[in-house]
Amino acid sequence: MSNPKKPLILVSNDDGIYSNGIKALTEVAAEFGDVIIVAPDRQQSAVGHAITIETPLRAQKIKISDEFQGFAINGTPADCVKLAHDQLLDIKPDLVLSGINHGSNAGINILYSGTVSAATEGTVLGYSSIAVSCTDYDNEADLTGCQDAARRVITLVLDKGLPKGVTMNVNAPSGPIKGIKWARMADSRYVEEYEGRKDPFNRPYYWLTGKFELLDDGNDSDIHILNEGYAAVTPIQYDLTDYDLLRKLGEEDF
Amino acid sequence: MSNPKKPLILVSNDDGIYSNGIKALTEVAAEFGDVIIVAPDRQQSAVGHAITIETPLRAQKIKISDEFQGFAINGTPADCVKLAHDQLLDIKPDLVLSGINHGSNAGINILYSGTVSAATEGTVLGYSSIAVSCTDYDNEADLTGCQDAARRVITLVLDKGLPKGVTMNVNAPSGPIKGIKWARMADSRYVEEYEGRKDPFNRPYYWLTGKFELLDDGNDSDIHILNEGYAAVTPIQYDLTDYDLLRKLGEEDF
Repeated sequence: MSNPKKPLILVSNDDGIYSNGIKALTEVAAEFGDVIIVAPDRQQSAVGHAITIETPLRAQKIKISDEFQGFAINGTPADCVKLAHDQLLDIKPDLVLSGINHGSNAGINILYSGTVSAATEGTVLGYSSIAVSCTDYDNEADLTGCQDAARRVITLVLDKGLPKGVTMNVNAPSGPIKGIKWARMADSRYVEEYEGRKDPFNRPYYWLTGKFELLDDGNDSDIHILNEGYAAVTPIQYDLTDYDLLRKLGEEDF
Repeated sequence: MSNPKKPLILVSNDDGIYSNGIKALTEVAAEFGDVIIVAPDRQQSAVGHAITIETPLRAQKIKISDEFQGFAINGTPADCVKLAHDQLLDIKPDLVLSGINHGSNAGINILYSGTVSAATEGTVLGYSSIAVSCTDYDNEADLTGCQDAARRVITLVLDKGLPKGVTMNVNAPSGPIKGIKWARMADSRYVEEYEGRKDPFNRPYYWLTGKFELLDDGNDSDIHILNEGYAAVTPIQYDLTDYDLLRKLGEEDF
């Protein structure tokens, strides 16, 4: 109890402010501190780290329940965290949470994830940040295991902090979990990605479908750990430099 | 001349298929092989690694010039590379190029960049991939230095290949460059990001503006090297795992 002040926790997501996932994460956040929700006003899946530059943003004050208030933003998850930081919050948060996403953000999904990007944006802005996702896409999925994992990681992060530049990416299956394990991002990709169709005027168009392909047989990858029924926690960094390769390349000038 | 077959080079970008930047990069690409252009049908800056999942994609065949043909896609840069790979190309490319972006993709800009994401998507799909950007936002900027840097990196990559999971991120100032240097991604962020206004009905809205802030005083960062008049080349990875931290954390179980 070194800090008697309740922490302020900013919660965002990419499924939109009315999703079940953000409700579940908000409930957990409220066990730790005061909560403010700033989230997209609609579904924003797969937007990655997109930000809105060509149109202005609006922030609509929303009463989510008797306990929780928030702002619905006509933008991306990264927009929400930026706008909360720069304009909407009088007090800076102690923690940024994003999720609980309805769908896995393990393996290559991390790249496309709006949920992870909201947390990463929090990290860029200097906040301890955690993304939480459920491998189950169903909006009605049982998120209790995800909540347990989130609770554990939030405790750890509030207690010990996070190194500069690091975001915690938490994934868990639906339902109860067997436990929580540290994990690395699995090598993976999507194959057979598009289904080509013809419109009534015989012009082609393409739907993204895509089969997820695991290219990784390590037992320490996030996807392996999830498949075993555990929550997987991966520390991710936004400095994308490949330092090992850079050192090697740097031995020769251009 | 170990391979007498001309390489096939896929060119994309985020400023759209009619930008000057993609024209400049296509000219360079044509010095090395056959070129196919698959790029967004309009400006897609700052979309990050967004992909289109809720609407179908269209691919419109376009004659760019007497020499070059391509497809204009109603999607993001990452969509373009995915669709080219999965549906549009009969022969798989030997190289994926993205750019030349009108605007820097050094430092934290990498996270938001559609240009870099197109190249990263190429890497995910298994292709050697290079992103090229000019620090000058002007569509009429002199891209000859960027072209020189691109030429040099393309030669290197076609000759030696790239390690799995690595994308080359090339930035250069406009006009002639002093040379080319290896670089790491500079620690940086945006501050004072939004300008709040009131609409005619007295309701607030927010424009993203943002001042770029360099937090990095190293002389090996991309931004430092660019400021000195050199092109900066950074090997970036899409595996975001912080392995050093993971090893340390893994010493204790959850």
